[in-house]
Amino acid sequence: MFDSTKLEHTLDKEEFKRIEAQLRNDLLDAQRELRDRGTHAIMILINGVDGAGKGEVLNRLYEWLDPRFLETNAVDIRKDIDNGWPAAWHYWRKMPAKGYITAVLGSWYHLILRERALGHIDREEFLRLLTISSDYETMLDHEGVKVLKLWLNLNVDEAERRYRKVKKKGFFGRPLVEEWSDIAATSSKHKLLSIIQEVSQLVLPNAIPWTIIPAADGRYRDIAMGQALLKLLRETFDAAQPAEKRKSTKAAQKHPEASEQLSRPSIVSTIDLSKTIDRESYQRELKDAQHRIFELTSSKAFRRRGLVIAFEGNDAAGKGGAIRRIRQALDPRDFSVYAVAAPSEEERAYPYLWRFWRDIPERGTTAIFDRSWYGRVLVERVEGYCSVSDWTRAYAEINAFERQLSINGYIIIKFWLAISPEEQLRRFEERKETPYKQFKITDEDWRNREKWPQYEEALTEMVDRTSTALAPWTLVPANDKRYSRVQVLKTVVKSLETALKD
Amino acid sequence: MFDSTKLEHTLDKEEFKRIEAQLRNDLLDAQRELRDRGTHAIMILINGVDGAGKGEVLNRLYEWLDPRFLETNAVDIRKDIDNGWPAAWHYWRKMPAKGYITAVLGSWYHLILRERALGHIDREEFLRLLTISSDYETMLDHEGVKVLKLWLNLNVDEAERRYRKVKKKGFFGRPLVEEWSDIAATSSKHKLLSIIQEVSQLVLPNAIPWTIIPAADGRYRDIAMGQALLKLLRETFDAAQPAEKRKSTKAAQKHPEASEQLSRPSIVSTIDLSKTIDRESYQRELKDAQHRIFELTSSKAFRRRGLVIAFEGNDAAGKGGAIRRIRQALDPRDFSVYAVAAPSEEERAYPYLWRFWRDIPERGTTAIFDRSWYGRVLVERVEGYCSVSDWTRAYAEINAFERQLSINGYIIIKFWLAISPEEQLRRFEERKETPYKQFKITDEDWRNREKWPQYEEALTEMVDRTSTALAPWTLVPANDKRYSRVQVLKTVVKSLETALKD
Repeated sequence: MFDSTKLEHTLDKEEFKRIEAQLRNDLLDAQRELRDRGTHAIMILINGVDGAGKGEVLNRLYEWLDPRFLETNAVDIRKDIDNGWPAAWHYWRKMPAKGYITAVLGSWYHLILRERALGHIDREEFLRLLTISSDYETMLDHEGVKVLKLWLNLNVDEAERRYRKVKKKGFFGRPLVEEWSDIAATSSKHKLLSIIQEVSQLVLPNAIPWTIIPAADGRYRDIAMGQALLKLLRETFDAAQPAEKRKSTKAAQKHPEASEQLSRPSIVSTIDLSKTIDRESYQRELKDAQHRIFELTSSKAFRRRGLVIAFEGNDAAGKGGAIRRIRQALDPRDFSVYAVAAPSEEERAYPYLWRFWRDIPERGTTAIFDRSWYGRVLVERVEGYCSVSDWTRAYAEINAFERQLSINGYIIIKFWLAISPEEQLRRFEERKETPYKQFKITDEDWRNREKWPQYEEALTEMVDRTSTALAPWTLVPANDKRYSRVQVLKTVVKSLETALKD
Repeated sequence: MFDSTKLEHTLDKEEFKRIEAQLRNDLLDAQRELRDRGTHAIMILINGVDGAGKGEVLNRLYEWLDPRFLETNAVDIRKDIDNGWPAAWHYWRKMPAKGYITAVLGSWYHLILRERALGHIDREEFLRLLTISSDYETMLDHEGVKVLKLWLNLNVDEAERRYRKVKKKGFFGRPLVEEWSDIAATSSKHKLLSIIQEVSQLVLPNAIPWTIIPAADGRYRDIAMGQALLKLLRETFDAAQPAEKRKSTKAAQKHPEASEQLSRPSIVSTIDLSKTIDRESYQRELKDAQHRIFELTSSKAFRRRGLVIAFEGNDAAGKGGAIRRIRQALDPRDFSVYAVAAPSEEERAYPYLWRFWRDIPERGTTAIFDRSWYGRVLVERVEGYCSVSDWTRAYAEINAFERQLSINGYIIIKFWLAISPEEQLRRFEERKETPYKQFKITDEDWRNREKWPQYEEALTEMVDRTSTALAPWTLVPANDKRYSRVQVLKTVVKSLETALKD
């Protein structure tokens, strides 16, 4: 494939102008339609050989498109990694909202290729990272973010000639985007090119293929880029109409896999809700656990880690009370609590997991989620707020999300607080009677109660599919509030102790 | 005032329970009303003597209020400063949106008191910082963010007794918020207390006074805190109704000061719009300036600085083209362009300058604003999108904003690109005719054109009031696009050279 760079790909000035005039109009129209539809976003990954004109392609995009709805993501990701953030965090933060186009200079592929070129990772790890990338792109695609992967290509001789020219003349009036120069300095150019060839030839099953653009001639390169973008935009619009229809019909159907599982026993039956604790033991064990949590989160070892706690459970199961007991044990400067409700309009303009990535804690600090990213496979599933295919793929996406956090040193604890229907009714009635508790009970809570079996089914499947070694679920009997609080705090202690021992 | 701590302020358990029950209901009602109105936000500054229970007061807030609409801002601001951000940046980032309450542990006063206690600043500088804080709070108040300043107080003996107890027993089941302990270790306790007394006794004219809360008895302290919050909420609601009415009547009136200035000559008359440059000189000077900008922004000296460029000008004056020429000269990883349009719903929930603080560049990088915070005194003033009092106070607020950036090492450049009405008409017609330029012209542009005199008046007053030594305006004749681009780039070069020489 790379040999095609030896073929001539040029455009003379006249031809360029003629094609450009029409292409520009078409691109602007398509960009406006993207905006008007508000259903999709575009990410253009700009990668390629040094000197092939990545910066010039970026400037051309700004010339041709309406710059108000075009963004660049070009921060040096190594800075983020130095600051302790997972590599993916950066791309989540700069995700285009629906209606927007983001050009990503030096995408995630740059980092992966780089690590391989430097010999930091072997071929097996390299393939693993490419698979993760491919899964990530598939998720984006499902969430309405279309990815255009541009590879700007030069043949070896031309690349070398340009590189020498830059080195000699320095800046020559064009933006200089060097991805590889520091590697080229320490490694042989041929090794570098063989690595690049390695990735470009690897087509993983279901992966979005690269659009290879011969870049020796600037005019040819830019027109090819513009046409590739236009093609993607038009395909997106064409596919959207029937796809939307298909989605809604699908959502109305019952998920076949789910109906087969109807006979499965609920996981709730394994939880012994009768457990209690006396007041005196409660006071003592609570204090002990809080003390220990304070010590552990103040320790030196914790400074390089981070703690993420997700609380789910039946309505009125006592999540707030448990969270307050953790709050009491932590330095207020080092943790945040996020109450997760239905996504806002802004949040709906991004892929589902975007808002949770936004709230990942800094190193050495804690984030507690009062309800969490599991909403997708609980309330959104049961209430039909998303399609069956959306919540079905969510299990794998959530596992990938938690894996990312975990391999980056975050400690993940997930609680399900379980109460019986009878206890819930008692608490609902109490909330109705007690003035300062009334705000905690809404009509929705009563409606949810009627769907108890569906929620149990969703819960069972959720635990089955997402209780992983790195991020296991803890099911907490919560009919006795004191018992559940102590269990929660002890679990936090144990998880911290285990994680910080390493 | 501090002697009042020697008086007895206690509540027995029974009395506390009785008062608490009612207070809790009232607070929840008031919080719900805050939410429903959506016109105001609350910031509660929690400062005070170590051991007085700042963390406990915070936990009490979480117990009494609906925690979904309550946030804590308790990050150690010294970390931000170490990372190169202006101190105020942190508070802008964590600003409560309308309907929300944020508890700020260790507010800006902590930093100021600390610097004074450590002897880093003299009394004059101390007073200057208090004045800046007071201006900041006044701005927040105007923007609908009500500030409750709580000072939790203990007498010297009690403070000392508690401090010894903490040191001896370590964590004792309550959150520990130490503001002063590290100073207490290096400085005498009496010096610290005298400084605290200094600030509490200083009542600057127009400053929001502190609410001093005797904190020796936890029950008394918490009830006093809750009552102070309830009082503020109720006063806010009471004042809001007539204030809103007053505002709209005012906005309809002509501002008296503005009418007096009608006879003032427009500043545009001082700009020689006939200036041009030939194509050859343009090419050469553009390249030279770009080359120099690249060098300067790549220099070591720039790494500790940051560059903020604001573009304003008549419609069709060529802002986009000028910005693209700067873009060509910069490393795409180190700058961002923000196209500023009417504020979104999310942005309207915060004080006016919030969104610009959000986009302040990191150290060593550049942010270009295509239209800027000057919208308030241009389009919002002329079109009546804000009240006269809003844009009148904006001049001082903008100057304070730019001063903050400047004293923190940011380089600020502000351009007004000026064209004649005739040239604008020619460009509008051209845009209408050229397909790929049509998106640049809207009905609004034609409407704005009819208000040319009002915009000139607003421009003249803007330049008069906001062209400061730290952040001067540069008026650029832009009838000839090439001439204006070269002027813009040369101005950037000159500003960078001057700033980086220091």
